[in-house]
Amino acid sequence: MTILVTGFEPFDGETVNPALEAARRLHGMSLGGHQVTALELPCVFGASIARLQQAMAELQPDIVVCIGQAGGVPCLEVERVAINVDDARIPDNAGRQPIDEPVIAGGPAAYFSGLPIKSIVAALTAAGIPAAVSQTAGTYVCNHIFYGLSHLVATHHPHVRGGFIHIPYLPEQAARHAGAASMALDTVIAGLKIVLQTTVAVTKDAKLQGGQTH
Amino acid sequence: MTILVTGFEPFDGETVNPALEAARRLHGMSLGGHQVTALELPCVFGASIARLQQAMAELQPDIVVCIGQAGGVPCLEVERVAINVDDARIPDNAGRQPIDEPVIAGGPAAYFSGLPIKSIVAALTAAGIPAAVSQTAGTYVCNHIFYGLSHLVATHHPHVRGGFIHIPYLPEQAARHAGAASMALDTVIAGLKIVLQTTVAVTKDAKLQGGQTH
Amino acid sequence: MTILVTGFEPFDGETVNPALEAARRLHGMSLGGHQVTALELPCVFGASIARLQQAMAELQPDIVVCIGQAGGVPCLEVERVAINVDDARIPDNAGRQPIDEPVIAGGPAAYFSGLPIKSIVAALTAAGIPAAVSQTAGTYVCNHIFYGLSHLVATHHPHVRGGFIHIPYLPEQAARHAGAASMALDTVIAGLKIVLQTTVAVTKDAKLQGGQTH
Amino acid sequence: MTILVTGFEPFDGETVNPALEAARRLHGMSLGGHQVTALELPCVFGASIARLQQAMAELQPDIVVCIGQAGGVPCLEVERVAINVDDARIPDNAGRQPIDEPVIAGGPAAYFSGLPIKSIVAALTAAGIPAAVSQTAGTYVCNHIFYGLSHLVATHHPHVRGGFIHIPYLPEQAARHAGAASMALDTVIAGLKIVLQTTVAVTKDAKLQGGQTH
Repeated sequence: MTILVTGFEPFDGETVNPALEAARRLHGMSLGGHQVTALELPCVFGASIARLQQAMAELQPDIVVCIGQAGGVPCLEVERVAINVDDARIPDNAGRQPIDEPVIAGGPAAYFSGLPIKSIVAALTAAGIPAAVSQTAGTYVCNHIFYGLSHLVATHHPHVRGGFIHIPYLPEQAARHAGAASMALDTVIAGLKIVLQTTVAVTKDAKLQGGQTH
Repeated sequence: MTILVTGFEPFDGETVNPALEAARRLHGMSLGGHQVTALELPCVFGASIARLQQAMAELQPDIVVCIGQAGGVPCLEVERVAINVDDARIPDNAGRQPIDEPVIAGGPAAYFSGLPIKSIVAALTAAGIPAAVSQTAGTYVCNHIFYGLSHLVATHHPHVRGGFIHIPYLPEQAARHAGAASMALDTVIAGLKIVLQTTVAVTKDAKLQGGQTH
Repeated sequence: MTILVTGFEPFDGETVNPALEAARRLHGMSLGGHQVTALELPCVFGASIARLQQAMAELQPDIVVCIGQAGGVPCLEVERVAINVDDARIPDNAGRQPIDEPVIAGGPAAYFSGLPIKSIVAALTAAGIPAAVSQTAGTYVCNHIFYGLSHLVATHHPHVRGGFIHIPYLPEQAARHAGAASMALDTVIAGLKIVLQTTVAVTKDAKLQGGQTH
Repeated sequence: MTILVTGFEPFDGETVNPALEAARRLHGMSLGGHQVTALELPCVFGASIARLQQAMAELQPDIVVCIGQAGGVPCLEVERVAINVDDARIPDNAGRQPIDEPVIAGGPAAYFSGLPIKSIVAALTAAGIPAAVSQTAGTYVCNHIFYGLSHLVATHHPHVRGGFIHIPYLPEQAARHAGAASMALDTVIAGLKIVLQTTVAVTKDAKLQGGQTH
């Protein structure tokens, strides 16, 4: 199988994006015989989806995992659902700040992840890597690409399994944000390998609790 | 217009549910000439939607606002989206604990709120009542009824505007949960009146930022 | 007995200070025959202690409870200990921002509260008012007055029992601070009455757990 | 100079204590010609101080840094002050759970750290390691040994400079505690080396803001 992982360029005043660092480190790896290709995405509404669409057309991957920075979270967050709305708290890297616009006009309200999210969280925590299911990917460029990916799968790549993982700040980022949690890049890489290996291995997700009361 | 507000019975070991207390206090009120009726819902998957369906058939309301307790949150959370999944961290009041089952088999992945959520948050904070847009209503009975309500609107009550509001613990509940925020019932009631009045008054929501980066 | 309660003027850009609002509402009350007098303090290093010293000399109170705003906390925090250091994150209302200066040069490193802090927290939570022991009053003007009060007691008013209570934002303040908890003024007042009544009634504090592992 | 670092055995149901793991990794290192010796301490009131007292008598160290686990915190916390109270939320490893007992009967209310805490935090964050000054070390065995160490310095080892550092969970611990932050052991080790090097190098602490308003 061919695996595509994506990471965004830095945004929100950061000089590094742990998602991009992680994607670069995964690039070229072979996981159980499955080749990993990394793609850098602009942190820009619209252009990020266009870039992903082009890469998927060229590479024809079997699995696509988009990765994004979630500044402040303490663990790998395996996203459950992408929603069809852009509502930007800060401008994107092209200066656009949409409010309550659809990611894809006429698209469904949401898509659920195509990854085995419960199996992934179980494999991560069993391996000693902090992880949780997340019920929202926000309404910024991360949710945007997650929705865009899901829509591409639904409309053009029906055999692709895809989803989104949020990751913490690196320690050097958290050192400048009082009270923010972080995760070492080596831990993130180890975790993302498990994400990919579990996605390769598990086609029917486990029935494991991963919900929240509110 | 006729307004229906719903609140759940107590759950998760609590002896009181602030949503039900609030709904009872709103029952019978006239807001600008619009009558408010309150409905108690069982904190039970399935049965809660059945009870709501019956009440909507009888009352034929114009506006339906479901209210639920979000233990620990500091403010009124105006929910943006309901998703088609039940994933229960704790059993409901009938002892059922579904994992990754759809609320409505064959329903769309999600519904967006029918309330003017940005206008509501703006009106609440202008009135000095802490409030925010929330991007997830969880995966428990609160999200369940929000999705069920939205599906009833989409399939049987096209003229109804409906949505969901999460509210904090009451102080007397928070006194038994170390570190939990709370809100006085009078403040909650004042806030919910503003929610209803804004819903009556605003049919086209304002374009105001209310998103999150993750 | 004569009871003195103090509250600070607004600081940090706020137009109201819940501690001062609460003190004003308590002023003139008789609690079990014990008269309450309120005193407004400037939010200024040094001048606040001078003002308190003058008031204690004039009023000769038996009990002194200083009250301060702790923006963001969810409950009444009954402070355990005052430390002999000023380390200001923001300037005080006179523009001074001391770093690592003693409150009282030559004073002891700390003073423990003279209030029955465990009995107070027990009485508050029994009454349904969220409360906890706090192990730090910070290093700003609140800790400053708490230390100054304790030093006045130790050096000039040996029969006075005194301490410090931190209180949350009012709802109207929290409405402007995303994610901040709050407490209604009526709940704060009800809580502070219990603080004072318990202080009058209990001279030997109860042995109740109120600590933290870190 | 001779440097002594201490770490506690696991407690609170954990099978590992990151403080002990870190101390073991530092044992035998030479930092700029200064030898580091590690000491394991029982997580027991009283016995931990006795063990430290014995080791200090034997080793006659110039610098003593005690390290402890602060489950849930996101960064290295450089403790400012130790207070003379034991108030245990959970029993220690010998089953004792003191409430409001002095660490040292007749000792002063508190001791300030003998480490250059501001310089340490500045050096850590400059090196990209998340760190902050903490105004409370709690009231459990960590604060107990910090106070005990400070009292030994004050009464028997006037030339020793000593203090306390709280460190986060390891990732493998946080994987079992939903929502808890963590730090990789390599990052912790890198940070503790900076703590020791800064302590060796800096005898007069920098005037840098590190306080809190409450």
